[in-house]
Amino acid sequence: MHKKLFIPGPTEVREEILRAQANPMIGHRSVDFSALYGGVIEKLRKLFGTNRKAFVFTSSATGVMEGAIRNTVNRNLISFINGAFSKRWHEIALRNGKEADAVQVEWGLAIKPEMVEDALKKKHYEAVLVTHNETSTGVMNPLGEIAEILKDHPDTLLLVDAVSSLGGAPIEIDRWEIDVIFASVQKCFALPPGITVTFVSDRALEKAKKVENRGYYFDFLTMLKYYEERKQTPATPAISLLYALDVQLDKMAEEGMENRFRRHREMAEMAREWGRKHFELFAEPGYESLTVTTIKNTRGISVAELNAELAKRGFVISNGYGKLKEKTFRIGHMGDLTREDLSELLKNINEILELER
Amino acid sequence: MHKKLFIPGPTEVREEILRAQANPMIGHRSVDFSALYGGVIEKLRKLFGTNRKAFVFTSSATGVMEGAIRNTVNRNLISFINGAFSKRWHEIALRNGKEADAVQVEWGLAIKPEMVEDALKKKHYEAVLVTHNETSTGVMNPLGEIAEILKDHPDTLLLVDAVSSLGGAPIEIDRWEIDVIFASVQKCFALPPGITVTFVSDRALEKAKKVENRGYYFDFLTMLKYYEERKQTPATPAISLLYALDVQLDKMAEEGMENRFRRHREMAEMAREWGRKHFELFAEPGYESLTVTTIKNTRGISVAELNAELAKRGFVISNGYGKLKEKTFRIGHMGDLTREDLSELLKNINEILELER
Repeated sequence: MHKKLFIPGPTEVREEILRAQANPMIGHRSVDFSALYGGVIEKLRKLFGTNRKAFVFTSSATGVMEGAIRNTVNRNLISFINGAFSKRWHEIALRNGKEADAVQVEWGLAIKPEMVEDALKKKHYEAVLVTHNETSTGVMNPLGEIAEILKDHPDTLLLVDAVSSLGGAPIEIDRWEIDVIFASVQKCFALPPGITVTFVSDRALEKAKKVENRGYYFDFLTMLKYYEERKQTPATPAISLLYALDVQLDKMAEEGMENRFRRHREMAEMAREWGRKHFELFAEPGYESLTVTTIKNTRGISVAELNAELAKRGFVISNGYGKLKEKTFRIGHMGDLTREDLSELLKNINEILELER
Repeated sequence: MHKKLFIPGPTEVREEILRAQANPMIGHRSVDFSALYGGVIEKLRKLFGTNRKAFVFTSSATGVMEGAIRNTVNRNLISFINGAFSKRWHEIALRNGKEADAVQVEWGLAIKPEMVEDALKKKHYEAVLVTHNETSTGVMNPLGEIAEILKDHPDTLLLVDAVSSLGGAPIEIDRWEIDVIFASVQKCFALPPGITVTFVSDRALEKAKKVENRGYYFDFLTMLKYYEERKQTPATPAISLLYALDVQLDKMAEEGMENRFRRHREMAEMAREWGRKHFELFAEPGYESLTVTTIKNTRGISVAELNAELAKRGFVISNGYGKLKEKTFRIGHMGDLTREDLSELLKNINEILELER
């Protein structure tokens, strides 16, 4: 039996989107491919209301986390760490030989604009790394406010991991002057994983020209060259996933992004209300994620057993991440899931835990 | 109308394999995923008769071309260049700050073991880059003979791009002591593109431990750690492509690798015979590829027009690559294509060009 995914990615993918992957193959140097990829890029820019360059990389977002740094940073950067994925991004910077400072915040708390302001006052950095939505803790950092601080530091680029928020939470890419932002499609886009949507500012592209050792596979300038010359990619892309993305972008446009954001907000409110009623929320109040709710296991239930029972009923949620395992659990509510889906899940949890009769 | 792909990748994918992608999503941290990925890895090792570690990266092979270098080379390497893809690999080395020497051979000619022997006599290199099958020219380099030379240089690793040969041409990975070898699945595996099968020797993994700045996304040691601990990958993989790979590996085992190689050889012989009869072959005699035949356009036909006519009949071949456009054309015969498929294509070309009545 398929278990409906209420985990913070991969999220549930609708049948129609799954089937779109199964279209017959085409050559990636054909006019048919250029029409497909060119269409996807323009739809992405329109849907997210941005004039930035857009790329779709064939890789997990982890690859683009690495690429964003290699493209834009010669020497130093600063990471703001409040969970497993911001920690990973910092590690990626170190593994690529960059001087990376870090501001560490307790898991569950948010990165505040003052923290960024203080750090940038003390030292000059080529780039700031911000993880918009910490999938490991369910904290959504105040990206718009953080971005405001960066406006006083025109030589410092803002790189944003929006892996589990872009498409579910409103992000004003251009107005906030974000230099590099990327999203995994298996989160709010409700697609199977394997490709990463990326937007890059002209400022970041200019910077890239002055950066050594950018590599090849994730090189923004090489991606741009192939796109501008023939609406193609330097390497063979995951064509079936582009088929699915193309269909899904039309569906997202049909729904309308405002409606999509509202749906995500309503699901988040439903999950929080339930969490507060029966447990406690893990995230700092006011910074709860719009796409994943992390719940403190104040009742000392066995999360593993809860999930085993849910599996029998055709659902799956996530245990806490890493050190938060069994101390918390996470309910993903992103992509194409609806209030009705979430309500059905919560009803089943209530029954299993005998929370309400 | 779908055009059957006789291009050197992406190759034609059978309906059953396309459909396998459309299975519902599962979490990449679930036991179901570990069973899927663990199964794929073991099937790969068995099918290719190797004790080496196997990884499946979510990326085009171009990513692993970069990763192979970053994992195993601190300072210097040597490339053997006889086409566009060996040239690209060399460029990737330079873009990653390595000292890369190159032996250049005219396009259409093969890399000979003596060339490798001479180069290694003159200077010590940490690694030798060999492109087994130059997809751009239809030349298959004598990998087994080249590998013999390397056996006298135990401190020099052999990195092999088998993008368009592995699974179609016999390669004795262990006996030839290949350190890193990788293949695009949209070639001889007859899958949609997006993942790259990679085998790595223990010697290469030991070397990696002594290499700085290996990065993260393509880091072999990180891949190995996640595999050994839980049969998973560090980053979210392209699950739908792994579904398809899993099914296809069973089909390949059913056919048997010897039969698969024989089928590729028979198709190659058919394509060469036809090419010699009506045109000339581009590859140096004795080094013609088993998976793609490049034909010299000795009749001065318009390859673009031929392809336009073929399209109307539901077929597509490839024009020459880059500077060889219109001077050559390429017929891919790899993956799940059969002698019957190829015969049908050649019959249609004969009709269009009025080669035989």
